[in-house]
Amino acid sequence: MEYRKIKDEDNDGGTVSDDIENLRGKGFSGASVSNVPVREQSKWKRKTVVTLALTFLTSSQAILIVWSKRAGKYEYSVTTANFLVETLKCALSLAALARIWKTEGVTEDNRLRTTLDEVIVYPIPAVLYLVKNLLQYYIFAYVDAPGYQILKNLNIISTGVLYRIILKKKLSEIQWAAFILLCAGCTTAQLNSRSDHVLQTPLQGWIMAIVMALLSGFAGVYTEAIIKKRPSRNINVQNFWLYIFGMAFNAGAILIQDFDAVVDKGFFHGYSVITTLMILNHALSGIAVSMVMKYADNIVKVYSTSVAMLLTAVVSVFLFGFQLTLAFFLGATVVSVSVYLHSAGKLQR
Amino acid sequence: MEYRKIKDEDNDGGTVSDDIENLRGKGFSGASVSNVPVREQSKWKRKTVVTLALTFLTSSQAILIVWSKRAGKYEYSVTTANFLVETLKCALSLAALARIWKTEGVTEDNRLRTTLDEVIVYPIPAVLYLVKNLLQYYIFAYVDAPGYQILKNLNIISTGVLYRIILKKKLSEIQWAAFILLCAGCTTAQLNSRSDHVLQTPLQGWIMAIVMALLSGFAGVYTEAIIKKRPSRNINVQNFWLYIFGMAFNAGAILIQDFDAVVDKGFFHGYSVITTLMILNHALSGIAVSMVMKYADNIVKVYSTSVAMLLTAVVSVFLFGFQLTLAFFLGATVVSVSVYLHSAGKLQR
Repeated sequence: MEYRKIKDEDNDGGTVSDDIENLRGKGFSGASVSNVPVREQSKWKRKTVVTLALTFLTSSQAILIVWSKRAGKYEYSVTTANFLVETLKCALSLAALARIWKTEGVTEDNRLRTTLDEVIVYPIPAVLYLVKNLLQYYIFAYVDAPGYQILKNLNIISTGVLYRIILKKKLSEIQWAAFILLCAGCTTAQLNSRSDHVLQTPLQGWIMAIVMALLSGFAGVYTEAIIKKRPSRNINVQNFWLYIFGMAFNAGAILIQDFDAVVDKGFFHGYSVITTLMILNHALSGIAVSMVMKYADNIVKVYSTSVAMLLTAVVSVFLFGFQLTLAFFLGATVVSVSVYLHSAGKLQR
Repeated sequence: MEYRKIKDEDNDGGTVSDDIENLRGKGFSGASVSNVPVREQSKWKRKTVVTLALTFLTSSQAILIVWSKRAGKYEYSVTTANFLVETLKCALSLAALARIWKTEGVTEDNRLRTTLDEVIVYPIPAVLYLVKNLLQYYIFAYVDAPGYQILKNLNIISTGVLYRIILKKKLSEIQWAAFILLCAGCTTAQLNSRSDHVLQTPLQGWIMAIVMALLSGFAGVYTEAIIKKRPSRNINVQNFWLYIFGMAFNAGAILIQDFDAVVDKGFFHGYSVITTLMILNHALSGIAVSMVMKYADNIVKVYSTSVAMLLTAVVSVFLFGFQLTLAFFLGATVVSVSVYLHSAGKLQR
């Protein structure tokens, strides 16, 4: 649960980190979707790199979580960790901007100064995640933790529906079919002997799960809308402002939730190597999510994180001696076909 | 296991029964794919009717099996039941032919007389099923019964592959994707807590399962090839000859396997109302399979029987108070999307 809090909150943005930039060499930081028209091939390459980065970071995130669970209970304060994630993302955005200012100079698109008109919508995704995280405490009255994991796959459908409604982008019929398959495949891959409990979820539980899926999907789609509204604006500036609000919200959470503990035991109480790695990973994942929003879209993000879920399971076989189930193989097959259909459906549009 | 023997053997043909003819009114028996060019719409209607008939008969077949299992052990001899199924199909073929001869007179296409050249290939599907049924006794050394049910879904893939190779009919890429989904979806719908055992199947078990799937797929595709080789030949004549060999093979099986029991206890020992209904159902299902082979194809047959499997489960909830699992809903979703993709893929070819 602590993990989910971190994970959900860092979905609301990201920044061009040096690490990710380095994957594409120096030329990449120059191609800041500004005045230079970027060629199709270069666009496609960038989209692929950010998608692969997100997939890799999401998998390693899940693996870190398994590792930390094996190492024992979380001893640190989750709110301080969330705050550090936001701060790190903010710092990385600034570092990337500093580099760009050096090579390109300060322009209309990459300057930090902003207008109220631009920035007023930025806190909205953070508020949506906050409401969702509050609801999360109540849903456990109706659903157990493995059941909640199953119900979270509703996010896939809600993201698709809201993507269509809010961003008004069309998916072909084949792509819709692929999206339903993605949801069914991910759920199948996660099936275990106790999964059937979820069918006994009372109506209130279903309604809450659907509301949470809509909130989460809305936050994702809204972030994409914010970032894409000004295509020429540098992503690092957009992220900087997103994360400033993220820092503010998490500072508030520390004051309300963990103030006494932080005063008594100190800010970094209980931090370990794994905690540090997790914070680093969450910051980079957040950045990757934001890059995917800028250069690809929410649909790519959903596919990327779903494939990451499967990769994590396969890697866990080698790292932790996990056993793969028949349900996993079937789910993985369905997800693979879904990925194929998503791209086949695109060509035939 | 007894059930599967009946079921597998009756796959090798069928005949236009009065029952199915009556579904389409009198005009149908006249439209015997002879010299009169049948209009596209009429073709499509006939295809739909035979497909729905097969789906309905396959579901009720499975429901009869559940019912008979609840009623207690099979007391009758399976070989005599198989023989009666073949005989009934033969009789129905003759009855349908007699009607056609009355309205149309005897023609080149509907006369019973045949040539060695036409009839020499007819026993081949029956021999293939025989080999498959013999193998069935050996595979249980490596796989348990629920595991075998899971592995039987390999039939779907083998039918698709052999359909492509032997009948040289192309499926679009979307349709191939749909076919893989059909296999994964059917397997998912059948998952239960002990399904994972199948992953421990030794190599010999896998090889035998694949060989059996190939034999079964080959028998199906070969039957279609035989029936479609002479498109103008009346289906009832083709069936008559198919079933004559079916009767001969099953008479042999009685002599080898159950001769003593039949002499001691009588041919109809242990027959009940359910047994009679099952024989009737198997005969009609066999006829429906044959009609689907003539007017549609093996792919339609596979979809039809897969959808029947899902229908059976839903009906069993009401009839027998079965509980549907989450895996069933997921599998049913994947199968439904597969059916959609199969037809969507056709349009885009």
